Amino acid sequence: MAMRLPIDFYFDFSSPYSYIASEWIGAVAARHGRTVRWHAILLGAANQVTGLQPPVNFPLKRDYLYRDVQRSAAFAGVPIRMPDPFPIPTQNAARVFWWLHEADPQRAVAWARAGLRAYFTRNVNLSDVPALKALVHETGLDADAAEAAWNDPAWKARLKAANEAAIATGVFGAPYVVVDGEPFWGNDRQAQIEAWLASGPPRGLE
Amino acid sequence: MAMRLPIDFYFDFSSPYSYIASEWIGAVAARHGRTVRWHAILLGAANQVTGLQPPVNFPLKRDYLYRDVQRSAAFAGVPIRMPDPFPIPTQNAARVFWWLHEADPQRAVAWARAGLRAYFTRNVNLSDVPALKALVHETGLDADAAEAAWNDPAWKARLKAANEAAIATGVFGAPYVVVDGEPFWGNDRQAQIEAWLASGPPRGLE
Repeated sequence: MAMRLPIDFYFDFSSPYSYIASEWIGAVAARHGRTVRWHAILLGAANQVTGLQPPVNFPLKRDYLYRDVQRSAAFAGVPIRMPDPFPIPTQNAARVFWWLHEADPQRAVAWARAGLRAYFTRNVNLSDVPALKALVHETGLDADAAEAAWNDPAWKARLKAANEAAIATGVFGAPYVVVDGEPFWGNDRQAQIEAWLASGPPRGLE
Repeated sequence: MAMRLPIDFYFDFSSPYSYIASEWIGAVAARHGRTVRWHAILLGAANQVTGLQPPVNFPLKRDYLYRDVQRSAAFAGVPIRMPDPFPIPTQNAARVFWWLHEADPQRAVAWARAGLRAYFTRNVNLSDVPALKALVHETGLDADAAEAAWNDPAWKARLKAANEAAIATGVFGAPYVVVDGEPFWGNDRQAQIEAWLASGPPRGLE
């Protein structure tokens, strides 16, 4: 059997579709003997490069997004409560991710899942320093050490490098999943990802 | 049994995801005892109101779209060959749709399917007058009458009214499907549409 490469999963802590996908990506990968490499990124940084704007900047699209997020979560069996404020800056949460990642990627994944769930089910504002420190503490980490990390130029640089690497890979939105070089954008590509993992490219695709 | 309302299907002749959806919307509706009301619109007109831009304006998103369209078509079992030029202005094809629609909506649907298939499988440029007239003739219609229609202020006004009605309904992209007041944007909402038609709202959706 050929070696099975890890799946790459790019997410932003303020992306509701990333949150929904974060709840299934691990199980989908495991069903096909794969592991997942998680990448915390800032969509805002990608947008600065691509010129794209978040959907919430457009009223009709924003209204649709609120409805579609809740419906898509319900179809996926994932609890959600759209937070307010939304969206929020997530660089501190993302720097904590990369800080943890250095020592143990699995702890970083646990933090990612905790952060996404806190924001999208309990309205924990990850851009608010006291709220973020309380959440860090709640997940069993040292809140002061985490705060020192997100203020540390080294971890700022690590997140910046992650953003640049993501953009170089072609990431312009989130969630963004790469399977053996094949890119899939959006929570709504779950069925295609699963089919690809099971059987490779669909018949007729060049 | 409650009366089953028609499904509304909004499409643009230059939208590849509209083309893919046009190949399944009728069958999906029929499986659930529904009919489909087709609406030819111009995404460009919607974009002028919403401020949105087509994905092809953004290089990373354009590259992804070309790949995703071909993969999504293959997964749907729909033949596709991305046309060049792409995208194109489609007001003449859309005016022919509304001209035919006045007398017989089913003839308009047949024209819509012929136009989408011609552009997305045979590279027939619907914005080129001789090519469009040849296609009209090929589908058994009077090409000179069609040309007169697309130059007629009455049919220009009819398309404008259709665009305005679509925007008033919340349509900001295509394909856009409305089932009993519930909006679904994108070819990738097929599974949700089918589930909604079969069982109504998913558990947990307010």
